[in-house]
Amino acid sequence: MAWDLLLTNVHLATMAGDDGYGEILDGAIAVKDGRIAWLGPWAALPTSQAATVHDGGGCWLTPGLIDCHTHIVHAGSRSDEFEARLNGASYQDIARAGGGIASTVRATRAASEAALLRQSLPRVLALLAEGVTTIEIKSGYGLALEGEAKMLRVARAIGEQLPVSVRTTFLGAHALPAEYAGRPDDYIDLVCRQMLPVIASAGLMDAVDAFCENIGFTPAQTRRVLEAAQALGLPVKLHAEQLSDQGGAALVASLGGLSADHLEFLSEDGIAAMARHGTVAVLLPGAYYFLRETQPPPIAALRAAGVPMAVSTDCNPGTSPMTSLLLAMNMACTLWRLTPQEALAGATIMAARALGLQHDRGSLAAGKRADFALWRIARPADLSYAIGFNPCAGVVHGGVWRAPVVSLAD
Amino acid sequence: MAWDLLLTNVHLATMAGDDGYGEILDGAIAVKDGRIAWLGPWAALPTSQAATVHDGGGCWLTPGLIDCHTHIVHAGSRSDEFEARLNGASYQDIARAGGGIASTVRATRAASEAALLRQSLPRVLALLAEGVTTIEIKSGYGLALEGEAKMLRVARAIGEQLPVSVRTTFLGAHALPAEYAGRPDDYIDLVCRQMLPVIASAGLMDAVDAFCENIGFTPAQTRRVLEAAQALGLPVKLHAEQLSDQGGAALVASLGGLSADHLEFLSEDGIAAMARHGTVAVLLPGAYYFLRETQPPPIAALRAAGVPMAVSTDCNPGTSPMTSLLLAMNMACTLWRLTPQEALAGATIMAARALGLQHDRGSLAAGKRADFALWRIARPADLSYAIGFNPCAGVVHGGVWRAPVVSLAD
Ligand SMILES: [Zn+2]
Ligand SMILES: [Zn+2]
Repeated sequence: MAWDLLLTNVHLATMAGDDGYGEILDGAIAVKDGRIAWLGPWAALPTSQAATVHDGGGCWLTPGLIDCHTHIVHAGSRSDEFEARLNGASYQDIARAGGGIASTVRATRAASEAALLRQSLPRVLALLAEGVTTIEIKSGYGLALEGEAKMLRVARAIGEQLPVSVRTTFLGAHALPAEYAGRPDDYIDLVCRQMLPVIASAGLMDAVDAFCENIGFTPAQTRRVLEAAQALGLPVKLHAEQLSDQGGAALVASLGGLSADHLEFLSEDGIAAMARHGTVAVLLPGAYYFLRETQPPPIAALRAAGVPMAVSTDCNPGTSPMTSLLLAMNMACTLWRLTPQEALAGATIMAARALGLQHDRGSLAAGKRADFALWRIARPADLSYAIGFNPCAGVVHGGVWRAPVVSLAD
Repeated sequence: MAWDLLLTNVHLATMAGDDGYGEILDGAIAVKDGRIAWLGPWAALPTSQAATVHDGGGCWLTPGLIDCHTHIVHAGSRSDEFEARLNGASYQDIARAGGGIASTVRATRAASEAALLRQSLPRVLALLAEGVTTIEIKSGYGLALEGEAKMLRVARAIGEQLPVSVRTTFLGAHALPAEYAGRPDDYIDLVCRQMLPVIASAGLMDAVDAFCENIGFTPAQTRRVLEAAQALGLPVKLHAEQLSDQGGAALVASLGGLSADHLEFLSEDGIAAMARHGTVAVLLPGAYYFLRETQPPPIAALRAAGVPMAVSTDCNPGTSPMTSLLLAMNMACTLWRLTPQEALAGATIMAARALGLQHDRGSLAAGKRADFALWRIARPADLSYAIGFNPCAGVVHGGVWRAPVVSLAD
């Protein structure tokens, strides 16, 4: 055998198998052509040659982290609203002043493609520094053909310019743009008849999402979008049950969708539907924290029903300005009582599943993509335990080793 | 004039004055002999020469951040307990298994001075990467002369090996060591008669603290420690009213102490006493978050009474494994409704005041120590708004420029 890369002197948390971390102490892992060629205990390493051998220094190695729900491409900051609210302004005051999602739509529409990319890259770099190797990026601040396509082109550019795999999601049905006020069905027409086919045929979307909520789109409008997406052969997912129970999770589950995301107000019927269809519950504790919500998603019931749970940052300027997946894992444990094992699975194999990529990545197994993160930790639980600490010691993306910190100058 | 360093093309948040950020747009700041020699609008810059001129690139410049309450020197991690609890173990189960603070005491006593330093440095580096230039470090996991002295020597070594100013605090009265079970007054004797004078005469402590709580020491025991410290000429502070109202804040205020810290159960009398004596309220939202507490400190009443408020990480392995002061600022705003201006003041000038250093640092003013942090942000509120994002673009510590990330290899 001639391997491209051999990592020795590492403990592996493979996240393979049904339970636990899939630990292999004193292990090694070999890469060939960007895929895992072999892994196991060091003592069982076959006689072999490798072009590069890297001593892991006794670190732990996990699958590269996967952030499966982000709105990380956007222009502007909403720190002005954050500050105004803390100084006593009401949401109405802020809306009257042109704030809220409208301000992000305005800024994102106005930004050139280069400016949008420039503003988004530092946030992506923050994720990469924490061992993230795959990131999902949604549109949803253009709310018109050109703005939505621009966001998705920027998302693709991120995957070309940085050592990270990007999966794009079209979220034209994120909010009603001002020019369609009072005419949501007309806007849904535009999404289904113009934006979806045009952007899909440009190859810019890997999946389709919508915001089903009393302040978003109705289940009927949502269904139109998701069915139009499926008619184009695209996988679907849904922002569901964040602020109220709209039956969105059951809807997306019944369509065979990848995931239902948020889920604070998920009903028993919704849980049953998700369990039946294997829909992933994408948990977004950053938004819950930032909005000071008080009703957690039904974690124990999801666990009991065997619904797969992923954890993500939901990085967005309005409700979760969070660029740390490790912190999302800590919040999932601290606020919602996930176990550290569930949190790590939620940011690796379950996140891969939420993107339909579970056969390609998300765990360490022969044949899977060679995406790893190396950590200076004593045990895997350290990743969920620490708050605001990054123990990443290195990353392998598609078989290529990189230092944990990537700068734009590299 | 011949300056050592001139920083141009920066917006200054001086944090000087009674209100607001003390903003100077399009400013410059000059350093001579490690102190601020001049600052003001660029347009008003006097004719001058500087050995080094650094273009700030339109960034914001704030005082270097000050983390005024940490237990960052300790050995071991408590992620095993974190995981056990999330898997259903009770606090009693964990205590029976030798967990809780006892496990940190055991690990810290057992660690060599070199090992203790090696384990602590990565946590300090995480703070430094976020623009922290001064950090307070407490003892309190030795609970005997040699262990306490060892912790404080490690704290001093951190200040010698890294570009950060360290202020040490002796916290011998942190918990009752197992060998004094049932004999707290005997332990307080040991603290007052042996540890305090010996460690003070070794020059290892800059201040003295205690843990006044129903699970800690009584107000009477606390008073003995603080008065013994004052007899040695040392400033005092106190862990007060975290879990119950013991009247600790009023006690330390009446002694003219620097700060009362935590304060979730602070009474109106306590607030009045702190206001009367100018005692700083050190707010520690990380512990509140991690312990899932529900009673916030009386922020509005503290504000109304004019009590100065600082914000800190409380970095410790049991109740706040947090190494991000920016995140503590966000939590203070999100969970407790501080304004971003209060949060930034809380991590600069108010934190300086909590250490008795407000005349030396904590704001940008001529004559003060040249400790700055440079930030790639649109406005100061961005520092409190973002969650898990570090926009630090550089640091000046004692007049010396450094890149934001310091590695142990430097
Ligand atoms: Zn979202
Ligand atoms: Zn403390």
